[in-house]
Amino acid sequence: MTAGADLQAIRERKPLVHQITNYVVMNETANATLALGALPVMAHAPQEVEEMASVASALVLNIGTLSEHWVAAMVVAGAAANRAGAPIVLDPVGAGATTYRTVTARRLLSELEIAVVRGNAAEIATLAGREAEIRGVEAVGDAAGPELAQAAADALECVVSVTGPVDHVSDGQRVVAVANGHELLGTVSGTGCMSTAITGCFLAVRQASPLEAAVEALVAFGVAGEDAARDARGPGTFHVALYDALYNLDPATLDSRAKLD
Amino acid sequence: MTAGADLQAIRERKPLVHQITNYVVMNETANATLALGALPVMAHAPQEVEEMASVASALVLNIGTLSEHWVAAMVVAGAAANRAGAPIVLDPVGAGATTYRTVTARRLLSELEIAVVRGNAAEIATLAGREAEIRGVEAVGDAAGPELAQAAADALECVVSVTGPVDHVSDGQRVVAVANGHELLGTVSGTGCMSTAITGCFLAVRQASPLEAAVEALVAFGVAGEDAARDARGPGTFHVALYDALYNLDPATLDSRAKLD
Amino acid sequence: MTAGADLQAIRERKPLVHQITNYVVMNETANATLALGALPVMAHAPQEVEEMASVASALVLNIGTLSEHWVAAMVVAGAAANRAGAPIVLDPVGAGATTYRTVTARRLLSELEIAVVRGNAAEIATLAGREAEIRGVEAVGDAAGPELAQAAADALECVVSVTGPVDHVSDGQRVVAVANGHELLGTVSGTGCMSTAITGCFLAVRQASPLEAAVEALVAFGVAGEDAARDARGPGTFHVALYDALYNLDPATLDSRAKLD
Repeated sequence: MTAGADLQAIRERKPLVHQITNYVVMNETANATLALGALPVMAHAPQEVEEMASVASALVLNIGTLSEHWVAAMVVAGAAANRAGAPIVLDPVGAGATTYRTVTARRLLSELEIAVVRGNAAEIATLAGREAEIRGVEAVGDAAGPELAQAAADALECVVSVTGPVDHVSDGQRVVAVANGHELLGTVSGTGCMSTAITGCFLAVRQASPLEAAVEALVAFGVAGEDAARDARGPGTFHVALYDALYNLDPATLDSRAKLD
Repeated sequence: MTAGADLQAIRERKPLVHQITNYVVMNETANATLALGALPVMAHAPQEVEEMASVASALVLNIGTLSEHWVAAMVVAGAAANRAGAPIVLDPVGAGATTYRTVTARRLLSELEIAVVRGNAAEIATLAGREAEIRGVEAVGDAAGPELAQAAADALECVVSVTGPVDHVSDGQRVVAVANGHELLGTVSGTGCMSTAITGCFLAVRQASPLEAAVEALVAFGVAGEDAARDARGPGTFHVALYDALYNLDPATLDSRAKLD
Repeated sequence: MTAGADLQAIRERKPLVHQITNYVVMNETANATLALGALPVMAHAPQEVEEMASVASALVLNIGTLSEHWVAAMVVAGAAANRAGAPIVLDPVGAGATTYRTVTARRLLSELEIAVVRGNAAEIATLAGREAEIRGVEAVGDAAGPELAQAAADALECVVSVTGPVDHVSDGQRVVAVANGHELLGTVSGTGCMSTAITGCFLAVRQASPLEAAVEALVAFGVAGEDAARDARGPGTFHVALYDALYNLDPATLDSRAKLD
């Protein structure tokens, strides 16, 4: 486990993490990125997206409030990131909930080299071709677990993080379970998107090891969630404490707090 | 009063509440919806808005940062919601402040079957054809009160909620005054939009009784505001405590805390 | 120093401050504006932007997530504000980071009469024609200081605020250093944008004296930052406390807390 060392690297190098994400969570993912120690930048205009992606250390694509021009920007930015060797993490928000989301997520996976896909069980099951019942973007499908992560990683040919009460990360061969986190994470909109952004931060300093980066990100975010829950009185105070907790994560103790399986 | 029972129903059924709203408050209304116990989903692309609206239990339309494509999406989503029998709540943010907002709000009211309109006195007075002096979207026009709510409900042929220090809800025949709330609600941007989203949540489990749903939503939101104000030291801590308070609303005591007239 | 008196004027007159800003910080700048005592309004549609700008007391332009239609709206709104005599403050977010941002900021400066430009050292250095190394919109270029502010004000022919650990404001002749603030401001996304919005609020009641307005805004925002830091445990609690602090700023003591040079 090198989550602590990689967190330290994020804070020292302050990698630029380019995010093309949804309107609902932009402020939240920017602040989570900044609290962790990286530099967020949001840019989606066709006039600049390639230039921005080519200087960033990682690219986060999130289809939570997708529309035609934003998807086009994701494709252009993703191609630039691929050329520059910067890893891409994809959050297929709501895949399965509408055809447009499913088709767009598949298109991004087909046209770009994606390093990590991070989604809930229903979204990942949809992309992996497994049927799933989906009720909104906050929904969790079936208790999918390790098999789903592995099957999806196989099918999508990239690392897949299926997050839920216990997260499962797989590269198609290995499967790592991460049991860090807290149930209050499910009461705040955008915590999934934040975990995707945090995955982008770890990818930025761990470009060659997407499985490790994805696991470390979920450990770091989960530990922050545990810290944030300590004095929370509900979703509001928890949400605020989450930024404090990300900012105060201790690289020296992070590895020992990982609940892996 | 069945606010407590309907809150309980929201938490049990977790209805999907589709929201096409403004950029400023998207995160806030999503989190208020989630804190109350419903599932928010934001989607505005023409490619998916109909599909999303047809599976949701209620639709929230808010013109706070309107533009051509968003208004078009509202019309398509609204028609799908009407066909599916899902109630629509409209927030005519800034009606009267610019011609475009007034015209758009009128257009939505004319082309769609709206269950509830929720606005401040100035916005509602504009839509009801009464002159009003409006200074920005946070402004309150005159101390309109019960007459305005009733006249507007008559003119617009739907339930109308006029919110302010005391809220007035009318279906054109009855008028209910709701005195819950706290003055700090006026110091946080988007609390009006949140009360509209909460109205959508109650409508989702009370589709046949929009007057009751609208009243219960304002009671629930007002009581949460009272709870949030208890330890607040200003708009920041109040805003955070508001999500905690929505999350911690007690169905067993909610009815008894209603200040109706 | 008349920061206290001007803060008092803001609270009494509640000027309407029209903001065309970026998706990431819209809620934040609206809430900062409201907490200070002014009325924020966000509007960007070509159908209404001129009408809104013509009734506002100041206009805030921020290119943080610019795109073609938004830039067009800024030009139209800016022209209307100029005609109405309402001062404009420009936040050139990311100027220098991409060509599109640099060109757009220059275009706005060329086509509109801008009262104040507020940016970090890297952004201002770019616009002033000085080379700067820029790493994302949260980055700080070189320790530019008074000379940069003065040279930029000269080159851009308006008041320039270069913010950082110490802020420098110049009209090309005088240079005022403002040492208020706290390092936690750098850990929250959008605090620069908030300081621009606050500049718009002071400009709204100090239209004839942009240098004074810009200085007073940075004093007020910096003092609020100092107050917010007192009990903060990280970026989350600091961010929340910042709104409380803006709301609780005391006009009677504000001048005496200014750290000017």
